[in-house]
Amino acid sequence: MADQKFYLGFDLGGTNMVAGVVDADYRIIHKESIPTRAGRPIEEVTFDMAEVSKKALYNAGLTLDDISSWGIGMPSYVNPKTNLLVHANNFGWKNVPVYDHLSRHISLPIYIENDANCAAYGEVLAGAASKYTDAVMLTLGTGVGGGIVMNKKIYAGFDNMGAELGHTKLVYNGIRCTCGQKGCLESYCSSTALIRKTKEAVDTRPDTLILQLCGQDKEGINGEIVFEAARRKDPLAVEIIDEYICHLAAGISTFITIFRPEVIILGGGMAQAEDLLLEPLNQQLYTSTFAAEEIGIPRVICAELGNDAGIIGAAFLEKTMQK
Amino acid sequence: MADQKFYLGFDLGGTNMVAGVVDADYRIIHKESIPTRAGRPIEEVTFDMAEVSKKALYNAGLTLDDISSWGIGMPSYVNPKTNLLVHANNFGWKNVPVYDHLSRHISLPIYIENDANCAAYGEVLAGAASKYTDAVMLTLGTGVGGGIVMNKKIYAGFDNMGAELGHTKLVYNGIRCTCGQKGCLESYCSSTALIRKTKEAVDTRPDTLILQLCGQDKEGINGEIVFEAARRKDPLAVEIIDEYICHLAAGISTFITIFRPEVIILGGGMAQAEDLLLEPLNQQLYTSTFAAEEIGIPRVICAELGNDAGIIGAAFLEKTMQK
Repeated sequence: MADQKFYLGFDLGGTNMVAGVVDADYRIIHKESIPTRAGRPIEEVTFDMAEVSKKALYNAGLTLDDISSWGIGMPSYVNPKTNLLVHANNFGWKNVPVYDHLSRHISLPIYIENDANCAAYGEVLAGAASKYTDAVMLTLGTGVGGGIVMNKKIYAGFDNMGAELGHTKLVYNGIRCTCGQKGCLESYCSSTALIRKTKEAVDTRPDTLILQLCGQDKEGINGEIVFEAARRKDPLAVEIIDEYICHLAAGISTFITIFRPEVIILGGGMAQAEDLLLEPLNQQLYTSTFAAEEIGIPRVICAELGNDAGIIGAAFLEKTMQK
Repeated sequence: MADQKFYLGFDLGGTNMVAGVVDADYRIIHKESIPTRAGRPIEEVTFDMAEVSKKALYNAGLTLDDISSWGIGMPSYVNPKTNLLVHANNFGWKNVPVYDHLSRHISLPIYIENDANCAAYGEVLAGAASKYTDAVMLTLGTGVGGGIVMNKKIYAGFDNMGAELGHTKLVYNGIRCTCGQKGCLESYCSSTALIRKTKEAVDTRPDTLILQLCGQDKEGINGEIVFEAARRKDPLAVEIIDEYICHLAAGISTFITIFRPEVIILGGGMAQAEDLLLEPLNQQLYTSTFAAEEIGIPRVICAELGNDAGIIGAAFLEKTMQK
């Protein structure tokens, strides 16, 4: 396999860790995955990361000699001034020398980038935005992640710790966010936010289909149920989704006003409800974005690669990051 | 003067147009200015722009042969797909072939950029941010302009029509902005916004020093008066300025969260009140910005070059823009 070039991408998630071997055409030729068991010491987790990565290479018929770097996406940042991983809440790590730990096991150049940035990069390289060079991606899951790609490269701010689009302010003095700030986009557009809002609303509207769909136990409410009820025209669910779309459109309009990217990509669990989100969102953006009439607005599309986007993006970090 | 290189920068304002000859050390060696008389046809205005520019060169002891391009800042955008000036509200122009008009009079490469971008670029080249490569600037005047500089180059969005920071959303479903949208930063942080807010407030608090300072005629209220009253501890003025700073900090926190620039620059008339704005703003940002404690925040500073920033930035557009 020595003629062709291969890339090793890694996605460290809170639940699973996945290593993927990617070919030069951005195809994942082999994947290996094990549970992360977050909360363990960094020594154990980084040891496992290396083992899973080597196993993926081995099962793809390759060795470390066949690749030139190890690209890793994780839900945190490395501060380029200190080379420390700043904070990874799900893992219980703060200011840890992650490069040192990783390089004990694999002696290749290592590139670490925020997982939302990797996902955006993967979608631009090989997914929904492969026709474009400039995209903004929002990952709508438990939280809201952001990724910015300019000229086919990740833009993560001057010190590589920006592009935190989920923590831009959407509602002045609004709801308290998990990050401690008030009114962040994440507090209105994550699945957590949608579920919180729905739980509040069902108390005064107990006749809603939402409660039927979760067996009258409001603790069972999740994003899929709210979207399904809206699909079946349940009035409360429709109202909740309408408001959700208004919030999301307002957030996206800010990113358009700043970046005027070619396309906006939505990923994460909430983007599964493509049929309910995309058309109203695109309409709403046209009326709620600066100078939309004069200069047009980019379309919102849904991500195509799912979790693979982050692996592909991570695998190609050597093309986007300076070392 | 042939050994040294010179640059021609032009600032087309709503009131005056100014041409400046700038040396390679970013010093303006000569300036010429005439009233713009906005509202005239583009043929007349562009003719005057060329005349003023040639006069500036002549009086600096130079000719068109001594320079390699004509850089122009104006309050609008050229759409790179059509080469038309999109809209310049103060001038009554919409979709005009501005390059064609200008090149009839001066046959040099012409670079046109939004004036707020030019000002940010000028401050990074030669002013308050000359030690830095990455800055975000807000121009707080009648409106709110935005400029983004990355790696000592202007970033104006994929299609060069972004970076409109004044029209990012600050207050969800907030006050109607002049642009037609709701809740734009400009609707809360321009001098127009400050004056509107103050006029509303004085009706219920007629004992305020603000009214004394404008001879009890609230139509005479301007930004300087409100800041002066706050400086003298007038309770209403202090409240208004406090709220103004809270709004501005919320807006800036979004830009920090996205760009994590090295520095934030404030320009425009409102930034004259540096003594009242900077310290509380920097304090407020520390508590109201994502991950400020973990990774720090850039400082807010005031612009140093005034209107010259736009001329210097325009003069060096050939270094930042592709042709």
